Amino acid sequence: MTISELKNHFDEEIEVSGFVDEIRNLKWVQFVVLRDQTGKVQITIEKSEEKNKELVEIIDNLTVESTLRVEGKIMNSPSVKLGGMEIIPTKIEVTSRNEGELPFNYKDLSTVNLDTRLDYRYIDLRSEANVLMFQVQSTMVRYMREYLYNEGFTEIHSPKLLGAASESGSEVFEVKYFDRKAYLAQSPQFYKQMALASGFGKVFEVAPCFRAENSNTSRHATEFTSFDVEFAYIKDFNDVMDLEANMLKYALEKTNEVYGERIKEVFNQEIIVPKTPFPKMRLADIYKELEERYDYKIDDSEKNDLTTEAERLCFKLAKEKFDSEFLFVIDFPAEKRAFYHMRDENGILQGYDLIWRGVEITTGAQREHRYQEICKNAKEKGLGEDVKFYLDFFKHGCPPHGGFAIGVDRLTMLLLDIPSVKETQFLFRGPNRIAP
Amino acid sequence: MTISELKNHFDEEIEVSGFVDEIRNLKWVQFVVLRDQTGKVQITIEKSEEKNKELVEIIDNLTVESTLRVEGKIMNSPSVKLGGMEIIPTKIEVTSRNEGELPFNYKDLSTVNLDTRLDYRYIDLRSEANVLMFQVQSTMVRYMREYLYNEGFTEIHSPKLLGAASESGSEVFEVKYFDRKAYLAQSPQFYKQMALASGFGKVFEVAPCFRAENSNTSRHATEFTSFDVEFAYIKDFNDVMDLEANMLKYALEKTNEVYGERIKEVFNQEIIVPKTPFPKMRLADIYKELEERYDYKIDDSEKNDLTTEAERLCFKLAKEKFDSEFLFVIDFPAEKRAFYHMRDENGILQGYDLIWRGVEITTGAQREHRYQEICKNAKEKGLGEDVKFYLDFFKHGCPPHGGFAIGVDRLTMLLLDIPSVKETQFLFRGPNRIAP
Repeated sequence: MTISELKNHFDEEIEVSGFVDEIRNLKWVQFVVLRDQTGKVQITIEKSEEKNKELVEIIDNLTVESTLRVEGKIMNSPSVKLGGMEIIPTKIEVTSRNEGELPFNYKDLSTVNLDTRLDYRYIDLRSEANVLMFQVQSTMVRYMREYLYNEGFTEIHSPKLLGAASESGSEVFEVKYFDRKAYLAQSPQFYKQMALASGFGKVFEVAPCFRAENSNTSRHATEFTSFDVEFAYIKDFNDVMDLEANMLKYALEKTNEVYGERIKEVFNQEIIVPKTPFPKMRLADIYKELEERYDYKIDDSEKNDLTTEAERLCFKLAKEKFDSEFLFVIDFPAEKRAFYHMRDENGILQGYDLIWRGVEITTGAQREHRYQEICKNAKEKGLGEDVKFYLDFFKHGCPPHGGFAIGVDRLTMLLLDIPSVKETQFLFRGPNRIAP
Repeated sequence: MTISELKNHFDEEIEVSGFVDEIRNLKWVQFVVLRDQTGKVQITIEKSEEKNKELVEIIDNLTVESTLRVEGKIMNSPSVKLGGMEIIPTKIEVTSRNEGELPFNYKDLSTVNLDTRLDYRYIDLRSEANVLMFQVQSTMVRYMREYLYNEGFTEIHSPKLLGAASESGSEVFEVKYFDRKAYLAQSPQFYKQMALASGFGKVFEVAPCFRAENSNTSRHATEFTSFDVEFAYIKDFNDVMDLEANMLKYALEKTNEVYGERIKEVFNQEIIVPKTPFPKMRLADIYKELEERYDYKIDDSEKNDLTTEAERLCFKLAKEKFDSEFLFVIDFPAEKRAFYHMRDENGILQGYDLIWRGVEITTGAQREHRYQEICKNAKEKGLGEDVKFYLDFFKHGCPPHGGFAIGVDRLTMLLLDIPSVKETQFLFRGPNRIAP
């Protein structure tokens, strides 16, 4: 039984297990706080009672962070601060023993250097906030998937080992593959498109991506979990934006139902379930409004993409103008985007960025699905042999399609207002960090 | 609208898209069969009708495997073989054009060399069986996950880039990681255990694993999708077997509900929803019965593991003895298993293999969670510095736990009676195969 289930079993004999969170060994009584992934509960042992002799001895020798299996009765005790209940144990088994002092106090991480925390991630993750963070992340992903399953999507598992360094050779990791070289996938982009060329219709994938970027920002990692979506038979890229908005709304709503209260308590953050469709603005109009509203001026040469500061201001703009935390930005210049993004007959890019709470969480687009056109686009970008295998996918018919990708770690960072993906990845990977 | 939905909209104006599966251009009438991921439908164009002039011209110039968007009326036409319905189109748009001859006829793969099929996997996957195979795989994984979510599991995403070649150095891929070396994870074993040492309670992961094995069998690949489960507070390894059996039962039941009929049609295979608990037999007893029942004799020296032939015979044995397709095999010798598997006080391994339809699909076990013991076991196997980071996880308390892993590709192979994982992987990766 988990600790959260105990409250439904008052006065019953129960068995519960967990970590020793706290020990208070007083003159007449011993209190032990037991912790599992669902909460905490107090165990109370009266020292004077003869039948408790063995239990008292166990607690006398107990260390915090050891693990226990406890049998006893769960009592409704409104005076007990911790959940208004306590366990009166009949049997306690020490299932593992913490042998030494922890490298730091994970209950107050504010004073601990982030690198030290990551060195001892297995201790760092014991904090209530960290356990909750990954439960929330798992729940968000669960319901993003569920939305797609309900829409008829198929989950695929595309290979991460590639024979050719495709998209952008400079940021790719090289692997020794028997007597030749292989490369790690930077994204499943080409393969999710292949699935559509093969008639899969609607696909998604949740998998690691690898980028050999030597950059140390709060948003970047050399390995991260990408939630990738791609689907066929779209009319235009508005269909892609609509699906993404509806999926996020569904997942945020469900996550809020399950964890909304605890997120408020632990992270002081509120999940705001968005209204759909999300507002859309053209890049040029955003810069105009940012200047008018917030006196944000930059050189025209920078206006072909969103600066980090402009992204940040977009949060304010979206809230004030649309009462939305989300904003789709459209009409990026085609030359700033990948060769497989669709352009319309005037050369306007049929793609978008999605800004949430002032940070870009997605790039999405309709893709170029016409063989002649995609070949032309690849040639224009100077891409040759390495992408030939990809261009072949379009040779024998491929329906119009589009898609997007969301970084799961980044999503978690924004959802819970965590400063960096170094904390929202289970085990962060960066240029200088590849352990534990 | 997908093709499978059409039957609910007879006499309505509909819009549908897909690949051109077949064209029959007769004297008075044109038939086009349209295909999407949900099925096929016939489009009928009467040549004599004046209003069809444009449509007739489009079909005259159409090639099979091009893609269409079609508007029209869906008619209930019991005389039409294909689903008893047909589309009378008012508009047809060719959204992409197949420009050339296909490298092979994917509708009859029996005569096509497997390597050729894999070279042109984007064509190979167009077959009805292949599209269905991945829908079934996705559905199986969906409901395995759902079972675990309902049991309170958290999905994690552990890193695939490792600083040390841990479990078995010889079969690990090496990565050039900036100015040093990294390695690709062979399994998330150490990290899912870390999650439990961190208090996550119950975790799972569905992710690629990498093995630099230079072997070419029907069951092996250098990259494969592993469904990994690990959970704490178990009593013993029977808890692990029970959870796995219940999870598989749940997923098979759900998959059968959704795809049972189509699997029968296309693969001539029946999903048999198992009864739980699955039967369990000791390795020594299996060899005894295999000899008694089927006169299967091997040298004693081979009896410390299941031979491939013994696995195969286990299918027969499990069917005859227990009316079960599944069989848990227990009591393997400890020296044949990894150092982190738990042994009891008599040295008996607390682990198992699960045999389904004569093939091993899982190795599972209770793990050694006690710091002193796991250090001793590692030392015995001659493991040193490379696993130190892992041993540290157990230093400060770790609850009793166990888990298992299922290869998703192998599971699919057995479920649909496909000869090799080369066909059940979206894109197979082997020593000689790393493209497309």
